[in-house]
Amino acid sequence: MGVEVESKIAEAISPRHYNDGFHTTGTVGAFGSVAACAKLRGLDAARTAHALGIAAAEAGGLRQNFGSMTKPFHAGHAAEAGVVATDLAALGWTAAPNILEAQYGFFHAAGGGFDPTAIVDRLGKPWTFASPGVSIKPYPSGSLTHPAMGEMMRLIRQYDIKPADVEKIDVGANHSMVTTLLHHHPSTGLQAKFSMEFGVSILLLERRAGLAEYTDTVVQRSDVQEMIRRVNFYVDPEAEQAGFDKMTSILKVHLKDGRILTGRAQFAKGSPANPMSYDEVSDKFRGCADFAHWPRQKANAVIGFVKTLESAPDVGRLTGLLTS
Amino acid sequence: MGVEVESKIAEAISPRHYNDGFHTTGTVGAFGSVAACAKLRGLDAARTAHALGIAAAEAGGLRQNFGSMTKPFHAGHAAEAGVVATDLAALGWTAAPNILEAQYGFFHAAGGGFDPTAIVDRLGKPWTFASPGVSIKPYPSGSLTHPAMGEMMRLIRQYDIKPADVEKIDVGANHSMVTTLLHHHPSTGLQAKFSMEFGVSILLLERRAGLAEYTDTVVQRSDVQEMIRRVNFYVDPEAEQAGFDKMTSILKVHLKDGRILTGRAQFAKGSPANPMSYDEVSDKFRGCADFAHWPRQKANAVIGFVKTLESAPDVGRLTGLLTS
Repeated sequence: MGVEVESKIAEAISPRHYNDGFHTTGTVGAFGSVAACAKLRGLDAARTAHALGIAAAEAGGLRQNFGSMTKPFHAGHAAEAGVVATDLAALGWTAAPNILEAQYGFFHAAGGGFDPTAIVDRLGKPWTFASPGVSIKPYPSGSLTHPAMGEMMRLIRQYDIKPADVEKIDVGANHSMVTTLLHHHPSTGLQAKFSMEFGVSILLLERRAGLAEYTDTVVQRSDVQEMIRRVNFYVDPEAEQAGFDKMTSILKVHLKDGRILTGRAQFAKGSPANPMSYDEVSDKFRGCADFAHWPRQKANAVIGFVKTLESAPDVGRLTGLLTS
Repeated sequence: MGVEVESKIAEAISPRHYNDGFHTTGTVGAFGSVAACAKLRGLDAARTAHALGIAAAEAGGLRQNFGSMTKPFHAGHAAEAGVVATDLAALGWTAAPNILEAQYGFFHAAGGGFDPTAIVDRLGKPWTFASPGVSIKPYPSGSLTHPAMGEMMRLIRQYDIKPADVEKIDVGANHSMVTTLLHHHPSTGLQAKFSMEFGVSILLLERRAGLAEYTDTVVQRSDVQEMIRRVNFYVDPEAEQAGFDKMTSILKVHLKDGRILTGRAQFAKGSPANPMSYDEVSDKFRGCADFAHWPRQKANAVIGFVKTLESAPDVGRLTGLLTS
């Protein structure tokens, strides 16, 4: 419900809202959080409208904060905004009842207008979860790094590329990808999450890119910094022409022996076009749980229960397993 | 310090930011709150920059919420955002260090750009508190109602106008005033705060417009609603030409005997051009204290102490008087 509402709202003001610098997770995300919370609390339509208005007062988030601790804060703050707004609306707190479409509302202020055909009568037709679907990210970095990183991993394995063999690497993408992945010379783990240069480099050096690699210590290693300088991340006319809604990534790995290995990807592993299996998602979850120092048994219990979620008599058991 | 920072920031992105629907109190106000809090906490420049970036993640506020409980929430939320952001930055939390002027920062996203001459080297030269100065509002309604309301009060007293004498009242103003005071048919006290029609009507009926008048009960009275329908609040070409930064208000009171009483105001009582005296501000404070059921003695003690604030050995005494 929440994902559906925020997806359709985002589509109605795309791409101006994001292009201008807003981070949709923190802005539109607040409305998704309201939708979910209002449904859970059983608010009527009028109070739900007020909750959306209250959430708009808390919806902040700018792309310039990508690569800092404040970027993930956008997601948490959006979720909090929905809970607070719904609580206040339930108490009778008032706000504009038409905050999205009104003359001085969210769409106009933050999107310069909106596209009614993207949202009116579109909720659940089809559900965004079903089409186009959502992506799960195998790597703990920005989703725009993923098509190139997946393709890079394929080339590394296929040709058994060693770091010492590499002269330079060209990664071509569209304008939006090059500006969103804004840390071209990262020096912290947080910046590296928004760096195509780091993602490609660390795969070459370590053949993996997990939470253990996205740390200040690893990013600052001299071999990592040296490899980052060999990566040329540029706007490729062909990728640009493919369009803003594509993640076309064009790889050219120049080897010292003169060979050029090429690759091309548009969809990432984990995207609806190339989904991760249940076992692959479970492996990612185990990695996150290890990072948080969970006992392996606890992670496995959660994974086992989630597999039976559709037929579970009480989904509340999940909360118990997560907090045990 | 806070007022200075938020004033100069607002001037750098005026008028696009406000025109598009953002409520400056909730958005730019968050940066003013950071400036004040960071100064009080003694944060260094780097941490203050991060605090500004964190506050940007909490800076929301849309004009469409005017006339609802969420409008005053913008001011409180902006203040809270500054305190939270400064606390987080003091703990070492990171954000973009250049959130205002950066490519995907606040100015670009929310203002479509900015005017460097309005902000660079302009802090304290002059202080906004000194020039143009700030307004204190005698009435508990939107500041844009004040020039017309003050002039209306003058006409009522000068000609001893009775409600039954009035055929209709024209109030001409610029486009921004007519759209900002968006409740032309208010039915609640909160909507009435953003209604020129109510402000003018209640002065005619009660010869006062205090907290006791801005209530649902008073706004819904049949004589009030009847008078509101006689007020024609319109965009006057002359007021429009005077410009967005003026509050030119043109009054024409049409009496049933055929006379037309005219008035015109650009500055409100309480504005720097026509300031309230210390005693007038004290009277307003007493009215607010009464509304909050404070003992009169408590209000008087605060008023007496504030008068000696410049030479007080310890301003902390004020906190004691306010919370006693």
